[in-house]
Amino acid sequence: MRSDPQRLRFEIGARDGAARTGTIHTAHGPIETPAFIPLATKGTVRGLESSEVAELGYELILGNTYHLFVSPGPERIAAAGGLHSFMGWERALITDSGGFQVFSLAHGGVANEVKGSGRSGGEHGSKVEISEEGARFRSPRDGAELFISPEVSMQVQAALGSDIALVFDECTPFHADREYTARSTERTHRWLDRCLEWHDREGPTRQAVFGIVQGGVYEDLRRESAQAVAAAAVDGLAIGGTLGRDKEEMAAVLAMTAPLLPVEAPKHLLGIGEVDDLLGGIALGLDVFDCAVPTRLARHGVALAPSPETRWRLDLRKGRWVGDRSPLVEGCPCPACTRHDRDYLSYLSRAEELTAVRLIVLHNLVYMRELTRGARAAIAAARFEAYRAAVLAGAPPWSA
Amino acid sequence: MRSDPQRLRFEIGARDGAARTGTIHTAHGPIETPAFIPLATKGTVRGLESSEVAELGYELILGNTYHLFVSPGPERIAAAGGLHSFMGWERALITDSGGFQVFSLAHGGVANEVKGSGRSGGEHGSKVEISEEGARFRSPRDGAELFISPEVSMQVQAALGSDIALVFDECTPFHADREYTARSTERTHRWLDRCLEWHDREGPTRQAVFGIVQGGVYEDLRRESAQAVAAAAVDGLAIGGTLGRDKEEMAAVLAMTAPLLPVEAPKHLLGIGEVDDLLGGIALGLDVFDCAVPTRLARHGVALAPSPETRWRLDLRKGRWVGDRSPLVEGCPCPACTRHDRDYLSYLSRAEELTAVRLIVLHNLVYMRELTRGARAAIAAARFEAYRAAVLAGAPPWSA
Repeated sequence: MRSDPQRLRFEIGARDGAARTGTIHTAHGPIETPAFIPLATKGTVRGLESSEVAELGYELILGNTYHLFVSPGPERIAAAGGLHSFMGWERALITDSGGFQVFSLAHGGVANEVKGSGRSGGEHGSKVEISEEGARFRSPRDGAELFISPEVSMQVQAALGSDIALVFDECTPFHADREYTARSTERTHRWLDRCLEWHDREGPTRQAVFGIVQGGVYEDLRRESAQAVAAAAVDGLAIGGTLGRDKEEMAAVLAMTAPLLPVEAPKHLLGIGEVDDLLGGIALGLDVFDCAVPTRLARHGVALAPSPETRWRLDLRKGRWVGDRSPLVEGCPCPACTRHDRDYLSYLSRAEELTAVRLIVLHNLVYMRELTRGARAAIAAARFEAYRAAVLAGAPPWSA
Repeated sequence: MRSDPQRLRFEIGARDGAARTGTIHTAHGPIETPAFIPLATKGTVRGLESSEVAELGYELILGNTYHLFVSPGPERIAAAGGLHSFMGWERALITDSGGFQVFSLAHGGVANEVKGSGRSGGEHGSKVEISEEGARFRSPRDGAELFISPEVSMQVQAALGSDIALVFDECTPFHADREYTARSTERTHRWLDRCLEWHDREGPTRQAVFGIVQGGVYEDLRRESAQAVAAAAVDGLAIGGTLGRDKEEMAAVLAMTAPLLPVEAPKHLLGIGEVDDLLGGIALGLDVFDCAVPTRLARHGVALAPSPETRWRLDLRKGRWVGDRSPLVEGCPCPACTRHDRDYLSYLSRAEELTAVRLIVLHNLVYMRELTRGARAAIAAARFEAYRAAVLAGAPPWSA
C-alpha cells in the first residue's frame, strides 16, 4: 500500500463489527461508503444523462476500459479532455482494466456474455491469445486485431483520466483448476508490477491505482495474492476472479478472503451487487461494489423490490400486474413509484417502450442508493446486522 | 360548428395576415396556439415521462386510438380512469380516430409504414376489409380480428377520455383517383354524422370533437367537404387525407383548402410538422400540428437544426462529427446542447445508446417548442412573414 493524499485518501468513519462507513477522497470529490457504483459501461449510464446520475446522489461511476478501448478509442476520449469531460460527469470515475472482458472472451466461463455487449464473443469471433506479454484479440466491432497488456491497459486508463484505475489481471474462470489458478495468479502479480511501473513513470499524478486480489476459490492462493497486492504500492484493493459456482461458495470465498486484506485500505468487490451479496460484502468490511445487474435488469423490464423469495426482482413483463394500481414498490421515492402504477409500468415494459427502461433504471438506481444509504446509517447506529436481517427478511431499505 | 364552452372554447388573439395566435381552452387546461403536438402514440412520448413533457412546456399531446385499441385496449385504460390517468398526464389530450392507421394498412400508400409500428402491415398480415359499416382487420399483435367503425372509434376515444376526439374518416391515399376520392369523401361525411350521433348520445360531456376535411387534391371535393364538416356540430376542424405527392403540391392543396374553413374554428393540420410545412400552415391560419417526425428522427440519431439545405436535419450518425466540440445547435437551451458536444452525441448515437435517443428527443421537442413560441411572438408583433423568411433562410427559431 502507498499513501498519497494527492491521489486518494480513505477515512474510516463508524465501525460495526467488520462493517464500516468511510469516505474515499478523490481528485473529483468524495465518495461516501459503503457505496454502489453504477456502470457507465460505454460512457453513459443506460438511458440517463450524467447530470441525472449525480442528481440521484451517486458520487462514483465505472467506465469500461475494454468497451471504450474498442470504441470510440482512447485517443478520441483523450482529445475530449478525458472521460469526465467526454461524458459530462464531474464526480469521481473508476475504470476497470479490461481484463474481465478480454478473459471472458477467452474462457467463456466467468460470465455467459461479455458485459455490456449482450452477446458472447461478438460477430467477429472470440479467439483470444494470452501470453506473458498480454492478450491479443479481434475487435468485436470491426474484426481489427487489438492487443491489451498491463501497460496498454494503464495507458488507456490514463487517457480516460479516471480517478481510480484498476490493474490489468487475468480473471480466472470458476472451472479453472488449482494449478491453472496458481500460475494465473502469479502472472497477475507480475502484471501488477508492470502496471505500477508504467503508472509510476507515465500515469496521471492524481490517478489512484487499485490492485486486484486473485486466487480463485483456494485459500492459500487468496492469502498469497492478498499479501502480494497489499505489499505493492497500490492505493486500494479489489477482490476479483471467480468467487465460486454459487452464492454459498461466493460467501465462503469472501469470508475467507476479506480478513486477509489490510483493514485501512478501501476495498472494491468487483462485479457483485445483488442485494444480499452486497450486504454480505458490507458485513465483511468491503466498501464499494459495482454491478451491471440493476441497469441490465431494467432493459428486460425487471425492477428491484423487497422480495427475497424472487431475489429482489419484480418482473414487470408478467401478465399479473394488469390492473394493479399499487406503486411498483410502496414508499419508494423514485419517479416510477411516485408517479405511476404497476399496471402502466407493466404495459410500457411489454410494449418495449424506452420510457419503461428509463423509469426502471431510475427505480433500480434509487433502490441501490437507498440500500447503501440505509447501510451507512445502520453502521453509524451500530445496528448493521439488524438492518441486514430486516432487508434479507423482505423489508424495503428505507424502513429496515 | 357548435359552440359549447364546457367542451372547448377557442379565443383568437393577435392576427397577422391569415396567421393568428389563439388559446384553445379544454377540460384539461389551455393550449396556446400555434402549437406543435408531440405524439404519445402508445401512451408515452418516446423516452420521456409525462411530467417531463409538461416541463418542456407542452400543453397538448396526441394519443393514438389505433395503437391503444390494439394494446392495451380501451377497457384497461378506462379501468385506469382514462388515458390521462393511465399515463400520468394532467394537461390536454387529443386522440386521432384510428382511421389513418387502418387505411394505411389497406392502401399502403399514404405512409410507407403504419405510424409507430416501424413496419408496414405487421407480422400477421395487413388485409383490411372496408365497408360502409367500417373496417375489419387483423391485430398486428396477435392476429385477432378487430373491427373499427365510426361508433367503435368514438367509443374507444370516449374510454380514453381525451379532451378532443377526432371523427373516424377514410384517409385516401395520394394515388386515389377523383372518382374513388369523391366516393370516399362522401362516405367520410356519412361517418362524420354517425360519429356525432354516437357522441351526442353517449360521448363524455366535456369531450370536444373535431371533424376532418377530406377531398384529396381536388378543389371542388375539398370545398364540399369543408362545407359539410363546418355545417356539422363539431368543435373544430382538421385537415386530413392526401395533400399531394410532394411539398409543392401539399402547399397548393393547403392554400386552396384553408380559406374554405370557418375563420373562427380551431384548425388542426393532421400529421404535418416539418419546419417549413408547419410555418406554411401557420401562415394559412392553421393552429395545431401533430407529427411523428421529431420523435421518430431521434430514434435514428437525427436532430433538428437550422439548416434548410438538409431539411432541418443533422444526422449525428455521420462520421463527420468526430472531434467536433460545438454544441448540436448553438444557442439551443435543451440539455443535449447545453451539456454536451457533437462529438459525444454522435458517439452515443452510433453506439445506439438509449441516452442518445432520449437526448435527441429532448432536443427535437425543444426545437419545435421554440419554433412555435417564436411564431406566436412574431404574429403578436405583426412580423410573422419576416420570422418565417428568417427561419426558412436558416436562422434558429430563437433568433429569427
